[in-house]
Amino acid sequence: MSETARLVEAIAADPRFAAARATLRAEHARTVEDIIRLTEIPSPPFGEEVRAAAYLEMLHAHGLAEVEQDEVGNVMGRRRGFGNGETLVVAAHLDTVFPAGTDVRVRREGTKLFAPGVGDDTRSLAVNLAFLRAMDAAGIRTRADILFVGDVGEEGLGDLRGVRHLFTRGRHAGKIDAFLTVDSPEVERIVTGGVGSRRYRVIFRGPGGHSFGAFGLVNPIYAMAAVAQGVGAISVPRKPQTTHCVSIVHGGTSVNAIPNDVRMEVDLRSRAAGELDRLDDEFRRIVAAAVDAENETRSVRDGPISAQIIAIGDRPAGETDERSFIVEAASAAVGQHGYRVSYEDSSTDANIPMSLGIPALRIGSGGRGGRAHSLDEWIDVEEEESLRGMSASLLTILAVAGVESV
Amino acid sequence: MSETARLVEAIAADPRFAAARATLRAEHARTVEDIIRLTEIPSPPFGEEVRAAAYLEMLHAHGLAEVEQDEVGNVMGRRRGFGNGETLVVAAHLDTVFPAGTDVRVRREGTKLFAPGVGDDTRSLAVNLAFLRAMDAAGIRTRADILFVGDVGEEGLGDLRGVRHLFTRGRHAGKIDAFLTVDSPEVERIVTGGVGSRRYRVIFRGPGGHSFGAFGLVNPIYAMAAVAQGVGAISVPRKPQTTHCVSIVHGGTSVNAIPNDVRMEVDLRSRAAGELDRLDDEFRRIVAAAVDAENETRSVRDGPISAQIIAIGDRPAGETDERSFIVEAASAAVGQHGYRVSYEDSSTDANIPMSLGIPALRIGSGGRGGRAHSLDEWIDVEEEESLRGMSASLLTILAVAGVESV
Repeated sequence: MSETARLVEAIAADPRFAAARATLRAEHARTVEDIIRLTEIPSPPFGEEVRAAAYLEMLHAHGLAEVEQDEVGNVMGRRRGFGNGETLVVAAHLDTVFPAGTDVRVRREGTKLFAPGVGDDTRSLAVNLAFLRAMDAAGIRTRADILFVGDVGEEGLGDLRGVRHLFTRGRHAGKIDAFLTVDSPEVERIVTGGVGSRRYRVIFRGPGGHSFGAFGLVNPIYAMAAVAQGVGAISVPRKPQTTHCVSIVHGGTSVNAIPNDVRMEVDLRSRAAGELDRLDDEFRRIVAAAVDAENETRSVRDGPISAQIIAIGDRPAGETDERSFIVEAASAAVGQHGYRVSYEDSSTDANIPMSLGIPALRIGSGGRGGRAHSLDEWIDVEEEESLRGMSASLLTILAVAGVESV
Repeated sequence: MSETARLVEAIAADPRFAAARATLRAEHARTVEDIIRLTEIPSPPFGEEVRAAAYLEMLHAHGLAEVEQDEVGNVMGRRRGFGNGETLVVAAHLDTVFPAGTDVRVRREGTKLFAPGVGDDTRSLAVNLAFLRAMDAAGIRTRADILFVGDVGEEGLGDLRGVRHLFTRGRHAGKIDAFLTVDSPEVERIVTGGVGSRRYRVIFRGPGGHSFGAFGLVNPIYAMAAVAQGVGAISVPRKPQTTHCVSIVHGGTSVNAIPNDVRMEVDLRSRAAGELDRLDDEFRRIVAAAVDAENETRSVRDGPISAQIIAIGDRPAGETDERSFIVEAASAAVGQHGYRVSYEDSSTDANIPMSLGIPALRIGSGGRGGRAHSLDEWIDVEEEESLRGMSASLLTILAVAGVESV
């Protein structure tokens, strides 16, 4: 048994951890109530304010220090440790993928709760509060300070802006030593790899004209088609996993007109920053070559084709070494609860600290769930499985933060 | 001077023609009123009913025989000739390109009238009525019967359905000997070539999937891009003029998804039916090959790409021989009025009879105009230029129909 595993076993065996678990159990109904309450506050992309205000209030009520909202909308509060100010962030994201106006009322069937965003990631917001109460009730003091954060802009075009700000521009930038994002239920899937992505909208413009009368003029659709064909043909490694996708094309007004402008959206991803850079370079070369080829193939008498590349997403790739302390601690804590651990790659708030070389993982909020990002999203709050998962994640947090006298 | 030119000169020199011209002049204000009245009755694509009913009433009031509306909505009436029932159709189209709800009120500035559809082709509807009154007032009897038609569905997706019905399924099918469509003001541009077109919407369908998680699956955008590239590269003759255009592309829902379905619209045209057939065959080969290539290049694990080709337009190519009587007559009549005649290719109601080998031309309603198919469309009804053009077109009609004792 490794030293890390022994540490995790020691915390798990400590009477204070048993007391914390007892509190999680005693307060399970309240945790479920908090999940429902927060889920029913809409929190669309770029519209997290109301939920953020409610969560700020809840952080206050849990007795944290330095409760505040930062410039971009993240809310947070500090649980002080007995060490010298080392800081572990435990986060969950406030935003959902669902637009304003989505019906977010929770429907309950037995132990299942159905609602958009209920599992991704609202459950985690409530579970982190349950962890706080459990630690307090059990009198657990950690070495590191724990900064509990409800962050904005994790999903889609939010582009990780909340956590990006936290690590790069906010007042805690440079002072965070480890990061755990509690995101979605499953605890056995520990995310150690942050898939990086670059997302672009490319607008191809040309002179346009009548399909018959202006035949022979450059057509932005042909340049765009060449880019699509080129991107589809880019060879990428399977490991580190690297992918590309032309996902949206749009343009033209009438069947009898060469269009003036058309646009496409492209998604480039890789687990490795270097591969992502290479893919990005290749993509830009393809766009430039396609524009040149169209301008050479057809007439530019009324004007040439141009392409404008607009970045609509940029998530850095990164990873946390599987032999690092944080991964070994999470693995031991989760394994200690009878789960079969797997290490996965995904795109989460942990991408940002990973890309900065700061130990970071995505862990789970416990219980089961499914159909995330769909209107049928659900979680199961059945008590035994929920508590087992929550206990595993609490143990991970305690191991990473360090517990007094263990 | 050719025999045809001599005939045209003889009609032009006849006192009855001078009397007809005098009536056109005397009634010019009424013709302008009719233009305004008809223009202000909206007549969007597939919604010509109200204007058709008004025009039917006007044909009645002009004393025509067999005034009727056919199965597809064309309205018409016959002015009998003294011959044995030979029939010349003189048509103008009822429909405009403008959707229901467009403001079609006419704004007058000096001798200019501004309104959507005012020149294309509402002016011609009124001008044909003026021709009727002029012939009647001058006591002109023609050899051929003249069937005056206000037809539906000339524009865009209307796909020439009114005149197509007239020549192929209506009760006059097989009994029309010549066709003149009065379409838009300019009289000096005589359309002798009917540009044929085939228009298609192609829907590419596939399994779709997550841009990262399902990387490697077939993507309908890549198949569509290959078709666009293929169509753009089709080599076509300059004479007979033949063109192709990928004009619309549309598909995809999210930057992080391989789309389920995407669609494109394609416009294929030629002055020659054989070239249009060849182009059409090539296009279909390209679609099939692109689908096969995508299904061979990427994984069809979750399903293959398919393509559905939907015809959204089919206008036959055709032409009227420039050495034929009808062209020589029109050329002489227009030239006799001091215009410099040019022969042009276009896509008009005349395509249908041209494709059937029936002598057919597009001639003008007189005066000047511009910005057809735009909300800024205008015509100039200044009297001298308007009457000069109208006189040229009336002379053409009379020469083609044949005038008693000339």
